Amino acid sequence: MNGLVSRTPTIDWVDNKVRILDQTKLPLSEEFIETKDYKVVCDAIYRLSIRGAPAIGVAGAYACVLSAKNILSENRNDFIEKFFAQSYEIENTRPTAINLKWAVKQMRDFVYQSNNDIVNIKTGLLELANQIKEDDQKRCHNLCLNGAELIPNNSNIITVCNTGGLATSGIGTALGVIQYAHAQEKKIKVHVCETRPLLQGARLNTWELKRTKTPFTLMTDSMAAQVMNNVKIDCVIVGADRIAANGDTANKIGTYSLAVLAKYHKIPFYVAAPLSTVDYNTGLGVDIPVEQRSAKELTRVCGIKFTDEDFEVTNPAFDITPADLIDAIITEKGIARYPYNASLENQCNE
Amino acid sequence: MNGLVSRTPTIDWVDNKVRILDQTKLPLSEEFIETKDYKVVCDAIYRLSIRGAPAIGVAGAYACVLSAKNILSENRNDFIEKFFAQSYEIENTRPTAINLKWAVKQMRDFVYQSNNDIVNIKTGLLELANQIKEDDQKRCHNLCLNGAELIPNNSNIITVCNTGGLATSGIGTALGVIQYAHAQEKKIKVHVCETRPLLQGARLNTWELKRTKTPFTLMTDSMAAQVMNNVKIDCVIVGADRIAANGDTANKIGTYSLAVLAKYHKIPFYVAAPLSTVDYNTGLGVDIPVEQRSAKELTRVCGIKFTDEDFEVTNPAFDITPADLIDAIITEKGIARYPYNASLENQCNE
Repeated sequence: MNGLVSRTPTIDWVDNKVRILDQTKLPLSEEFIETKDYKVVCDAIYRLSIRGAPAIGVAGAYACVLSAKNILSENRNDFIEKFFAQSYEIENTRPTAINLKWAVKQMRDFVYQSNNDIVNIKTGLLELANQIKEDDQKRCHNLCLNGAELIPNNSNIITVCNTGGLATSGIGTALGVIQYAHAQEKKIKVHVCETRPLLQGARLNTWELKRTKTPFTLMTDSMAAQVMNNVKIDCVIVGADRIAANGDTANKIGTYSLAVLAKYHKIPFYVAAPLSTVDYNTGLGVDIPVEQRSAKELTRVCGIKFTDEDFEVTNPAFDITPADLIDAIITEKGIARYPYNASLENQCNE
Repeated sequence: MNGLVSRTPTIDWVDNKVRILDQTKLPLSEEFIETKDYKVVCDAIYRLSIRGAPAIGVAGAYACVLSAKNILSENRNDFIEKFFAQSYEIENTRPTAINLKWAVKQMRDFVYQSNNDIVNIKTGLLELANQIKEDDQKRCHNLCLNGAELIPNNSNIITVCNTGGLATSGIGTALGVIQYAHAQEKKIKVHVCETRPLLQGARLNTWELKRTKTPFTLMTDSMAAQVMNNVKIDCVIVGADRIAANGDTANKIGTYSLAVLAKYHKIPFYVAAPLSTVDYNTGLGVDIPVEQRSAKELTRVCGIKFTDEDFEVTNPAFDITPADLIDAIITEKGIARYPYNASLENQCNE
């Protein structure tokens, strides 16, 4: 690969604090949240200061580190009880992305299985959170190498939401695939859906794609169909917040719409996500809990109210794309194809 | 019909002035533009202070009245030359909606064919503009009566953009059909697409539907597919800015997407528009000119910038829905069905 892909400082552990790039302020302002309080990390996850399924997994792990550090009890049972209670608080900040629960469960399992004293447990939790972060970086790297093989030279690609470095602690998932294809000197153009209501496409993808000088154009979500009709689109590639065992995929609201439109226009539709996003305990997409968010996300932009707020608003943060609309699921282990029960399980058992 | 549908003061002729409800300010502020200057009307059309294909037809007609009034020449040829030049300026403020050209052409034809003196021509132009407005009101009324027959009791209906009283000088087209069904005491719920970029759904449909106490919920455009999957949607109904002779329909960006999604979910997709929207001189949708608007419409909301502005933006104001995705075109003459060349021409010749 000739081009270097710049590292995005989404989340770090610095001077015994968690340091989060506040994505609600991007791109107009680059501000960081630094904290020793796990509740501040929970709030950052809830408010989407940090977002993206892999990134909130890492944030959840570091929140557990902060939680443990601040439990002063020297009684082991008391420590574990308090830590477990706070860990459930952390993993419940957002319900849909499985990576958050997956990471926090690893932290809890570590505490449960450890025979060490509390001081060493706390040190071990930090090491584990660092491992989860580094593991995420490696998964992203391998996933993006696998995905880039699906991107032809001279491609037009549609994507939605932000699935780049900001959404992970590595290079990203779907946007990372695009970034790797660009770094491999393939000629590509990204058609970025703005991603209402919180405009992750318009704010975050534009910020990331400018950093790597990847050609792109911004459009409203409602323009995707017309663009598919007018431009030769080579693929749609999106991330995932949770993938059911059968391949049904929860991702940012608007994803299902893109999948139906891609099918109609005979355009390949790809999901890119690490295997940590696959939830083998959820058989079907219909069983994935979908987070409903505040009505104000639809009536305000950046806090500015542009319409009345005395009526009913529908605001699911995610939708479910059925597996049969997905041409491939790209993971760190390779390219899974329909039917996904078998192909994902094979990858997981490798 | 039991319920009364309130009249929306979109555009009026008051005290020798054109009076326009400034739709860019709705719903948070109800302000009027009053002017004797046709250029102010042109600017109001361009900035979407007045919008909706039938309404800008009426606005174009009144702009012609103001134009004629302000031409002081007493020489007939000189008057006609100046009037014609200004009339073309008026009809070119927005390129897609045919109603604007259709109305302005009537004004120009009247001047061209009149044997009267200039004073009487000016009076005649005002009478003609008033007629065009009243004609629009009658067309809306009949169209909405026809369309309401397609709306079953206990319906969930999806619509996009604003096609109500604000978009016409009458009750509206697609939203008018919904309003009539509601006034007929059918139980309905409207699922309003917010309609990025200018949020006509979130700002204007909510304002109109509240006035008539019609039940509704607001969603982002990207949620329509998921709503079609989760709620039993009975139909999608939209307006039109120009209908080609074969039924291909230019309408607000996002319409084509809804039509594809409706087809996939086996939901009837209706276009509601007066016959003045049909352009028999344009055979196919591909020949309809589509207005490209400012990139700032995607990077700002109500003038507030929320992302950078140093990149490429795609911003077509309209898309083209192919006739074969449209289950019916509702006009003031009845319900036209595919193939539309024949059915629309039959209605026109009635």
